[in-house]
Amino acid sequence: MTTENLLRNYWYAAARAEEVTGDAPFARTMLGEPIVLFRSKDGSIAALEDRCPHRKAPLSLGRITDGEIQCNYHGARFDGDGVCSLIPSQEGKVIPGFAARPYPATEAHGMIFVWIGAPEKADLDLIPDMGAYGPGAGTGVVGGYMYIKANYLLLADNLLDLTNIAYLHESTLGATGAEALLAGEMEFEVKDGNIRTVRIVRDQVQTFFAQKTGKFEGQGNLDRFTITNFWAPAYLELQLCNAPASANMAMCDVPHHRVHHCITPESDGAVHYYWTMAWYHRPDDANLAKEFREITRLAFDEDLPMLEAQQCNIESDPAQSTLVNFEGDKAGAAARKIVAQLLAGESARAAE
Amino acid sequence: MTTENLLRNYWYAAARAEEVTGDAPFARTMLGEPIVLFRSKDGSIAALEDRCPHRKAPLSLGRITDGEIQCNYHGARFDGDGVCSLIPSQEGKVIPGFAARPYPATEAHGMIFVWIGAPEKADLDLIPDMGAYGPGAGTGVVGGYMYIKANYLLLADNLLDLTNIAYLHESTLGATGAEALLAGEMEFEVKDGNIRTVRIVRDQVQTFFAQKTGKFEGQGNLDRFTITNFWAPAYLELQLCNAPASANMAMCDVPHHRVHHCITPESDGAVHYYWTMAWYHRPDDANLAKEFREITRLAFDEDLPMLEAQQCNIESDPAQSTLVNFEGDKAGAAARKIVAQLLAGESARAAE
Amino acid sequence: MTTENLLRNYWYAAARAEEVTGDAPFARTMLGEPIVLFRSKDGSIAALEDRCPHRKAPLSLGRITDGEIQCNYHGARFDGDGVCSLIPSQEGKVIPGFAARPYPATEAHGMIFVWIGAPEKADLDLIPDMGAYGPGAGTGVVGGYMYIKANYLLLADNLLDLTNIAYLHESTLGATGAEALLAGEMEFEVKDGNIRTVRIVRDQVQTFFAQKTGKFEGQGNLDRFTITNFWAPAYLELQLCNAPASANMAMCDVPHHRVHHCITPESDGAVHYYWTMAWYHRPDDANLAKEFREITRLAFDEDLPMLEAQQCNIESDPAQSTLVNFEGDKAGAAARKIVAQLLAGESARAAE
Repeated sequence: MTTENLLRNYWYAAARAEEVTGDAPFARTMLGEPIVLFRSKDGSIAALEDRCPHRKAPLSLGRITDGEIQCNYHGARFDGDGVCSLIPSQEGKVIPGFAARPYPATEAHGMIFVWIGAPEKADLDLIPDMGAYGPGAGTGVVGGYMYIKANYLLLADNLLDLTNIAYLHESTLGATGAEALLAGEMEFEVKDGNIRTVRIVRDQVQTFFAQKTGKFEGQGNLDRFTITNFWAPAYLELQLCNAPASANMAMCDVPHHRVHHCITPESDGAVHYYWTMAWYHRPDDANLAKEFREITRLAFDEDLPMLEAQQCNIESDPAQSTLVNFEGDKAGAAARKIVAQLLAGESARAAE
Repeated sequence: MTTENLLRNYWYAAARAEEVTGDAPFARTMLGEPIVLFRSKDGSIAALEDRCPHRKAPLSLGRITDGEIQCNYHGARFDGDGVCSLIPSQEGKVIPGFAARPYPATEAHGMIFVWIGAPEKADLDLIPDMGAYGPGAGTGVVGGYMYIKANYLLLADNLLDLTNIAYLHESTLGATGAEALLAGEMEFEVKDGNIRTVRIVRDQVQTFFAQKTGKFEGQGNLDRFTITNFWAPAYLELQLCNAPASANMAMCDVPHHRVHHCITPESDGAVHYYWTMAWYHRPDDANLAKEFREITRLAFDEDLPMLEAQQCNIESDPAQSTLVNFEGDKAGAAARKIVAQLLAGESARAAE
Repeated sequence: MTTENLLRNYWYAAARAEEVTGDAPFARTMLGEPIVLFRSKDGSIAALEDRCPHRKAPLSLGRITDGEIQCNYHGARFDGDGVCSLIPSQEGKVIPGFAARPYPATEAHGMIFVWIGAPEKADLDLIPDMGAYGPGAGTGVVGGYMYIKANYLLLADNLLDLTNIAYLHESTLGATGAEALLAGEMEFEVKDGNIRTVRIVRDQVQTFFAQKTGKFEGQGNLDRFTITNFWAPAYLELQLCNAPASANMAMCDVPHHRVHHCITPESDGAVHYYWTMAWYHRPDDANLAKEFREITRLAFDEDLPMLEAQQCNIESDPAQSTLVNFEGDKAGAAARKIVAQLLAGESARAAE
């Protein structure tokens, strides 16, 4: 698998915050680079190349000692910046320049983000805003992780045109009025390199998620305002807004559910995929988290074989013909165009 | 796996007729090309490239609706010719030129055949004659399918020189007088690009299949007349004819058993292998089919590891030395020569 | 996997003597070459290319008949020199020049050694001396085999610097005073292209193996004299010598345990690894063999994932940076230098 078509100078989600502890290393390959994550003594996140510079043993097979990571092969210890603090067999003598490569890394909004490209360009202001999902936000939050052997843009396609719900997710997300998705126009705008799409479908049965808010009981059909945002390289957010059809609102942008998607390429042909769902109602219903996790897991389990089959079919296609766009693919096509432009920019700068 | 050494302008067996229904798609990769088979409303066979031209999802993950195949990702529908009849999210608007690539396909003799090469060359007269095996032929018919990771010519070798029965199939097909196969000459002729071999071995114990005919009870030793036919690229037929040794017949060409072999390359290194056996006796013995299927399955299970081991050994041979022929390989060598000539012909025409 | 960086003109361990019988062939791929081993009628070892020259079937799928190997596909028979003695379907007629490629092979010290390179250079005097481990040597001998997907020099590194015992083997071999290994200097000398290292650590707790000798009961702390020998391409021997610390011996080179390691590359990225342990005490304790096998097996099971992870990390490293040496790697670095020089020599001679 190559990695040359991937954008490097970005923060990528490496883990959920609670996956990285002070007790054990956490391994994650991103853009083809094996990385070990752990917490320094002060709880801050460290990310190092997962190859001990001595004999290239994975540091992630080691242990965390006093906030440093110790290689389990010969005991070399590295602090959170990759500086070697101990080589046990050398009576404490360290070797000048002997260090593990550090990556900029930080914790935000309940996630761990790692910067893969040039370290001096790592700007904390560029971290995607997931404030709506972090600790304390909303009434409830659930999430999940999937490893999917597909190019990350196939996931962007999938999320930017939801008409697949009527087919692929017929028995899960599509069980309530999915055919409505097939009608009506999607509006979208590209602004500051990001995409915002709005799909309004009027006078439809209540979806599973709308029903679960408890807000629309006895109100009959609803207008659906579905907002989808895309930020390169591969963050997406879905906002579900509803209003009674009888109100005939021009627009509603107050979501009762949000779903955020961090898509981190392992390579051109595989991703680490973290999804997070937040909601803003029925704080006393402890069962909601379970229900939301379950239906989302079932639906995404329907996406996985489709995405992986697409990837196989694209790789094996001798004609390497271009994809054809439906009308609903406007946003997906725009996302691909943004990524291509950014990639050309990175390549041009790399060539300078 | 490459496919460049494979003959393209031929009918290849894709499935047994009953495997392709009006209810569900059937996927088969032939000569490196993923193909989906299904039945149109009139029951005729449709074969399309198994890549939806929209996002390259396998159509075979979809469903059959009114004799059309519907992609399970976004609902695009294609008829048996690959013409798109519906894009649900576009309010019915189809896209000019948006179509799935169709392959010529037909049903004959209980099999489904697909033409891989130039569609305009697909001539129904070129379908291999399996009339002796189709519905209504003979007293009984059994068959099986195997996926074997070996070049198709290794299977042709195997079937054109049956002396392996004495070794590889010692405990199954070779249990009755296999050593006789090692004696005597095989005659063969090449005619119209096909091969016909005849091996006559006289005055031998009755084989398992001869015994099962019930025709030779009390007749002691038999003369064996074994006819093997080969048609390029890879169809073979074995005809088992016997006569009492006492009759001293010059030749007998009325088979009591026939075994047909359709060998369809998935790639240079793997085949889909369909075998079919027909017989002409004891119509009331319902047990025969079970017995014939069982011994054949046992025997072919002995072939599989040998063929796959050969393929590994051939691919990994740094010397890439040529195969050495025994006297019994005359027909196999002739088959390889025929294929090489046909391949040169296809290449020359492709270069025109 | 390539094999071009492997030394060819050497005896490599192919099997333990008892693994090769007169009853069944034994298959082993060495330096990328599939080889079948069997015993001729006189019990001597035969090693042939594991590809029948007829149709490249693996001879190892065949059977041994009268000290010859018979291909299980068409019955061709080859003697221990690879000469074809029978082609059954040709009424005994053999084909001039039709032969399986023979490899020089011999049995010594309880092992089977095969010479991969130019046959005329195969000199029995070059067989590694494992006299201390063969039948009748010492009080007891145990051994084991492992297949490890790692370059053979990573195993040499592992065995030439035992400080990993303090980390990787903390709970097995390192359970008794492993930290002592981290202290003190290792002396080594390169002589006749071989390496001998001596590590002396004084006044330490008794190791598991020292305790098991029964020689040092009530003697308190011991001085440890650990001798490690390396012979190219990849034979190593560890000698464990101890003396009471109170005796203050300058040197002790009488081992109570020896461990020999035959490391045979299957390719650049995998090895067949045979280890053999011999001891010289408590001949009546039948339990020792079991205990020694168990602890060694447990410890080597700790090495395996580390070695394979190193190999993955080295292969996948885009920087392909050189390994960094600790002080303890002096011997390992010397071994790599010896191998590189020998390899340059073989290449130069091959180019002549």
